[in-house]
Amino acid sequence: MSTFSIGMVHEAASRLSGHIVRTPLLESPRLNEAAGTRVLVKAESLQLSGAFKMRGALNRALTLTDEERNAGLIAFSTGNHGQAVAAAAAKLGTTAVIVMPKNAPTIKIDNCRWWGAEVQLYDPLTEHRETVVQQLIADRGLTLIPPFDDPRVIAGQATAGLEIAEDLDRLGITPDSVVLNTSGGGLAAGVAAVLTDHTPSLRVTLIEPAGRDKMAQKFAHREYPLTGLPDTIMDALSGPNVGVHTHRILAELSPITHTVTDTEALHAMAMFFTTTRLVVEPGGAAALAHVLAHPAEYAHQTVVLIASGGNVAPATFIKALETIA
Amino acid sequence: MSTFSIGMVHEAASRLSGHIVRTPLLESPRLNEAAGTRVLVKAESLQLSGAFKMRGALNRALTLTDEERNAGLIAFSTGNHGQAVAAAAAKLGTTAVIVMPKNAPTIKIDNCRWWGAEVQLYDPLTEHRETVVQQLIADRGLTLIPPFDDPRVIAGQATAGLEIAEDLDRLGITPDSVVLNTSGGGLAAGVAAVLTDHTPSLRVTLIEPAGRDKMAQKFAHREYPLTGLPDTIMDALSGPNVGVHTHRILAELSPITHTVTDTEALHAMAMFFTTTRLVVEPGGAAALAHVLAHPAEYAHQTVVLIASGGNVAPATFIKALETIA
Repeated sequence: MSTFSIGMVHEAASRLSGHIVRTPLLESPRLNEAAGTRVLVKAESLQLSGAFKMRGALNRALTLTDEERNAGLIAFSTGNHGQAVAAAAAKLGTTAVIVMPKNAPTIKIDNCRWWGAEVQLYDPLTEHRETVVQQLIADRGLTLIPPFDDPRVIAGQATAGLEIAEDLDRLGITPDSVVLNTSGGGLAAGVAAVLTDHTPSLRVTLIEPAGRDKMAQKFAHREYPLTGLPDTIMDALSGPNVGVHTHRILAELSPITHTVTDTEALHAMAMFFTTTRLVVEPGGAAALAHVLAHPAEYAHQTVVLIASGGNVAPATFIKALETIA
Repeated sequence: MSTFSIGMVHEAASRLSGHIVRTPLLESPRLNEAAGTRVLVKAESLQLSGAFKMRGALNRALTLTDEERNAGLIAFSTGNHGQAVAAAAAKLGTTAVIVMPKNAPTIKIDNCRWWGAEVQLYDPLTEHRETVVQQLIADRGLTLIPPFDDPRVIAGQATAGLEIAEDLDRLGITPDSVVLNTSGGGLAAGVAAVLTDHTPSLRVTLIEPAGRDKMAQKFAHREYPLTGLPDTIMDALSGPNVGVHTHRILAELSPITHTVTDTEALHAMAMFFTTTRLVVEPGGAAALAHVLAHPAEYAHQTVVLIASGGNVAPATFIKALETIA
């Protein structure tokens, strides 16, 4: 299997050009004040399908052979990757089957179906999603689009980092830190690789949900994948494991790891609403949640973070707004 | 006084470059489906100070003499122009006094104060805002930044139209309609002028709050300014009158005028949340509200509209979300 490289990110950027949204890097003086530091927000919640996931899914799908593509796509996902693969399949004129845990948010299941995908729900307490997926591939000859542990998927997510680097250069800004919402590690690995290549002194911090800190566990050589239903509102960061490629890329960058609570994530969503006018889902707000909860760690810095997704049910968003209403 | 021209818009774009957000033109397949037509959304809710108003206020402030600027700025506003002038004054290192109706949303009053501006509230039932402003200018020698009826303010707002035209060219799209939230008419006049210059066949539709349709009244030669407290949730569109310059520019373009209700605006806010993940305030959602409520008028078109502001209280946004929760 090929290895991830910065060159693959530039190839991905050319391939995706015109197919994805060139999202803005936003700054809010009020958010800077609340954080006690300078915060630059890459608004990937505005990306097609509502999350950065479209970059990796589409980059992978665009590099399939005709035969692989025409066989139909399959993906397993806690939600945002599924929507991205469903949208990519619609764009390429093929079909998609999305395997999702039955506790995935209804809005994400509905979105996959809206794109014309077939949704297969499984019980994460009694079934392994890999088994469900492998059976479907065996039965129906579908082509898997992996959610994170694939060099071309990582390269696709990393194009968000290339855009951040372009905007930083245009603005003449040298960042001190990048703080990244992390689950399987595709976005974190790709963006951290691109941005540390751009700014070698950059500090990389990975944020995971409390009780679901797979990457930190992996760095500490503890056992995983995690089992049981995740007890977190940050569904986008609640999958059971990290990738081999993503872990290897991140390990070379000596990242700091931290966790945030549901309450901190809801508060960060409310801050995004008030200061940047972005709709951000709980998992998409994890990085900001940590910056706001631990200002001393980021004092007098320029911090880059990604509002990585905006697929959130109205009821959950209301819960976030009620923290400030 | 000078007359508005497309050349002034290009000058404004050069002047503002690097000082404002280059906001994206977003498209959502789900929004297209809901509208029954193709909808392109210019996300000015992401603009600095949370509304397009920053463009006009800053363009005007950047063309002041040193003496005018150092005297301090003054503005009257239902909210978004006030925030923009307060932010522009902070950027230019001068002071600002913002005259607002006492029924303006608390969030907008607080935002002006956050930028360091002095807020002067008046009672719109018993006082004329022009009188309040003229007295302050007489007493303190302040420099007025008009909210809409000024060629350089209109030219500033029109830069949003230039960016839309650039994005349409890049995407190879020829629009059929532009639908514009309208109050005093600065944004509507500027953007309509630029876009009809770009696409002469373009149909221009102006949307106002029901019961506060000043521009339609003016076109029908009826009496105004409107009196009394406005009975609309669309506070950004609730000022008492339209401009002489703005009316003259728009009259040449033979626009269609329509109104929307509060219920329609709240529904459009919820649709923005679900489909584009934008936080849009009631007045910023008026154009989409009309497109969604009257699909037959826009069937089989490509419609451009502007999400013109995102300064909305959590409680009002919750009310919008409850229409779909």
